Amino acid sequence: MSVQVTTLSNGFRIVSEHMPALDSATVGIWIEAGARHEAEDQNGVAHFLEHMAFKGTARRSALQIAEEIEDVGGYINAYTSREMTAYYVRVLKPDVALALDVLADIVLNPAFEAREIEVERSVILQEIGQALDTPDDIIFDWLQETAYPSQPIGRSILGPSAQVARFTEDDLRRFVSAHYGPGQMILAAAGAVDHDALVRMAEGFFGHLAARPAHPAASARFHNGERREDRMLEQAHFTLALEAPDYRSEEFYASQIFANALGGGMSSRLFQRLREDRGLCYTVFAQSGAYFDTGMITIYAGTGAEEVGELAELTIDELKRSAEDMTEAEVARACAQMKAGLLMGLESPSARAERLAKLLSIWGRVPDISEAIARIDAVSMQGVRRHAQGMLRESHMALALYGPIKRAPRLLHLSERLAA
Amino acid sequence: MSVQVTTLSNGFRIVSEHMPALDSATVGIWIEAGARHEAEDQNGVAHFLEHMAFKGTARRSALQIAEEIEDVGGYINAYTSREMTAYYVRVLKPDVALALDVLADIVLNPAFEAREIEVERSVILQEIGQALDTPDDIIFDWLQETAYPSQPIGRSILGPSAQVARFTEDDLRRFVSAHYGPGQMILAAAGAVDHDALVRMAEGFFGHLAARPAHPAASARFHNGERREDRMLEQAHFTLALEAPDYRSEEFYASQIFANALGGGMSSRLFQRLREDRGLCYTVFAQSGAYFDTGMITIYAGTGAEEVGELAELTIDELKRSAEDMTEAEVARACAQMKAGLLMGLESPSARAERLAKLLSIWGRVPDISEAIARIDAVSMQGVRRHAQGMLRESHMALALYGPIKRAPRLLHLSERLAA
Repeated sequence: MSVQVTTLSNGFRIVSEHMPALDSATVGIWIEAGARHEAEDQNGVAHFLEHMAFKGTARRSALQIAEEIEDVGGYINAYTSREMTAYYVRVLKPDVALALDVLADIVLNPAFEAREIEVERSVILQEIGQALDTPDDIIFDWLQETAYPSQPIGRSILGPSAQVARFTEDDLRRFVSAHYGPGQMILAAAGAVDHDALVRMAEGFFGHLAARPAHPAASARFHNGERREDRMLEQAHFTLALEAPDYRSEEFYASQIFANALGGGMSSRLFQRLREDRGLCYTVFAQSGAYFDTGMITIYAGTGAEEVGELAELTIDELKRSAEDMTEAEVARACAQMKAGLLMGLESPSARAERLAKLLSIWGRVPDISEAIARIDAVSMQGVRRHAQGMLRESHMALALYGPIKRAPRLLHLSERLAA
Repeated sequence: MSVQVTTLSNGFRIVSEHMPALDSATVGIWIEAGARHEAEDQNGVAHFLEHMAFKGTARRSALQIAEEIEDVGGYINAYTSREMTAYYVRVLKPDVALALDVLADIVLNPAFEAREIEVERSVILQEIGQALDTPDDIIFDWLQETAYPSQPIGRSILGPSAQVARFTEDDLRRFVSAHYGPGQMILAAAGAVDHDALVRMAEGFFGHLAARPAHPAASARFHNGERREDRMLEQAHFTLALEAPDYRSEEFYASQIFANALGGGMSSRLFQRLREDRGLCYTVFAQSGAYFDTGMITIYAGTGAEEVGELAELTIDELKRSAEDMTEAEVARACAQMKAGLLMGLESPSARAERLAKLLSIWGRVPDISEAIARIDAVSMQGVRRHAQGMLRESHMALALYGPIKRAPRLLHLSERLAA
C-alpha cells in the first residue's frame, strides 16, 4: 500500500496515495465543516463561504485564480455537504505544487470584498432558483427537512433565499474562525504525487496556523413526517426515508447491502417490480447514506399522477418483503457489486482522494481496502434480514412528494401497511 | 501504442486498447444508428429499441440479463444519441468474456415480446415526463428542433409521446433490419482486455451476420429560428446556437478552442462577464458539438425574469467581442485545457472505449493522441479569430427560451446586435 498519512503539530493532516500508472493527480483540502455546523440563522453560510473562496484573495483576483489553474489545463472545483466542505484541483503531474499553492490561498485568505459578496449573493440566489426548478433535486432537501425537523442536519445546504439575501462579511468570518481550524483540515491527494513533497508544502502553507478547539455539530434525531407539494408537473415525484446506521456502526455494511439489493441496480427488487414488471417509472432507486451519528436509507421514484398510489403501496410491500425473504443470491450479488464498485472507484484519482479524506476523517486512519472487503464478505443473508427487520420495526419514516400527488397515500396509511 | 483494430469479412469492426495498470475493463457495442436515421413517423424508435434490448432475448429474461452482469459486480448500460446507439458493460478482468456474451445477445436477439413492449412503452413515457420536468434538459431538445427544423437531426431522441404510444414490434424490427448490420457495428474495449481474444469472440458472435448496405442519414441544414415557452419557473432558461464545423472539418479544433475560451471554464469570457462580474447566473457555458456533416456551438445560461434581457444582450456582445479580440493567452489556455482533458480522459476505461469507437467511426482508423495534440497546437490566435468571425458572419442563429422570459429580446434584435 502506498497510502501515507502525516499530522502536523497543529493537527493539520496530510494523506496521499501514489498511483504509478497516472500522469495526473487530484489534490484537495477537505474541511470538517458543513451545513450541519451552522446555527439556524447561519444556514447557508458554509456554502456561501465556499463560493467566496473563488472570488479573490490578498494575492489573487477571481480571474487570476481561474487562470492559474486553467492555464495549465487544470480543473478547480468545490462542494459543500452537510458535514464537509471540499476544494479540489485536478492537474497534470508537473502542476501539483501550483494547485496546492492556489488551494491554500483560497482556503486561508479569501478577501471577502464587499462588491464580490454582493455579486456572489446573486449567483447563489440563481443556484437556489435552479434547484427549485429541478423537482428530482429539490425533493431530497424536503425529505431531509422532514426526517430531521428543526435540526442543523435537516436544513438545506444552499440555505433559504431570505437568509442568503442578508449574509454579511462578519457572518462569513465568524464561520471561518469557528470551523476552519487546522485540526478540521485534511489535505488529500492521489495520482502522480509525492507524499514528502506534499508534507513540506503543507508545512509552509498551513504549519503556522494556531490549533483551535473544534465545535462539533449537534447530534441528529430522525422523525416521522411528510411533506406534500401539489403542483402541475409531468411526474409525481415520490421519496421515502428510514433511519440507517452511521458511518462507524457495526451494521453499516448490512444496510448498504440491503439498500443495494432493494434498489441499487437493474436486478434489484424495486427496479424489477416497479419498472420491469409494471412500467410505473423510468427512474427508481434505493440508497443508504451515512453521517457521523445517523444515516438514511432513501427510496426515490418518478411516476404518473394516476400511478403514484400503486407505486407507493408496491414500494412499501417490496420493502417489507425484502426484509423477510431476501435471498442468499441477492445478498451475494449486492456484495459483488459493492466490492467491484470499490475496486473500480480506485482507478480514478479524484474518487480516491475523496475516499482518503473521508476515511481519515471518519476513522482517524485509512483502513486498507481489504478491511472493507472483509467487512462486506462478513455480512450474511441472516444479518441483512435481521438488520432490515429491526429498521422497519424501529425507525421512523419520512415522506416527501412533489407534483400531481393527490392520489398518493398519506404517511399514516403507508406506516400501517408496513407494520401490517 | 497498444490500440489494435480488426475488421471481419462482413464489415464488423473490433477496436481495443490494453491498459496495463487496470484490473477492470469497459467493453461495448457502438452502432452507427441513432435518432437521425429515423423517418419522421419512426422518431423515437432507435431509443425504444435500446430499451427493448434489456427486456429479454431467446436465451435470457430481463432479470437474467441484469443478474448475470450484476452477479459479478458489473455495470451494464446503454444510450442513444442522434448518430449512435451504444450498449456497454464495465466489469472486472475475469468477466470480459461474460460481458461480451451478454452484449452480443441483447444486441442481436431481443425477443420483442408483446407484453414487454407494453411495459417498456410506459417506462419511456415516464422518461419523457422526467425530461419535460427538467427545464435545463428539455430546452436543448427545443434548441435542436429550432436549429434543424423538419429534419431527422432536429428531432428529439426520445420521440414524441404520441408516437411512442403506438410503436409496434414491426417498427422495431424494421429499424433493426435497416440499421443494425455488421458494417454499422463496432466492438470497442479498453482496460484489462486482450485484442486477440476479443476478435475470436467477435467472430463467434457476429461473424455469421450477412453484410448489408448502410442507409446513411439525410444531411443537415442549420436554420434561423426561435422557440419561446413562457412559464412560471424560478429561472429564465436561455440557449443560443450557431452552426459549427463537423467532426472532420479543418476548422474543428478552432471551433472547440473558441467555444472553450468563450464559455468552457471559470476563466472563460462568459463565466467572467455574466457570473463573476455581474452575478446574473449560476450555470453558464458554451460548448461546440459535432456531427458527421454539421455542428453546433451552444450557449446556455439560467437567470432571473428581470435579468434575462441584460443577460441575452451581454452574451451577444461577448460573442462578438471574442471573435474580434480573443488574445494569445486565452487561446493558449483553451489549448492547455483541451490537451489536459484529452490526457486525463484516457485514464478512464469507459471514456477510452467510447473514444476508440467514435474515432474509428469518424475516421476509419484511430488517430494517435499525438495527432489530436498536434492539431490543437497548430491553431493560432489568428486562426481562432478568423474562424469565429466567419461563423458570426455566415451562420444562422437559433434561440430557445423557457420560463419567465417575457423580457427576453427577440431573435431579430439579437441578430441585429450581433451584426451591428
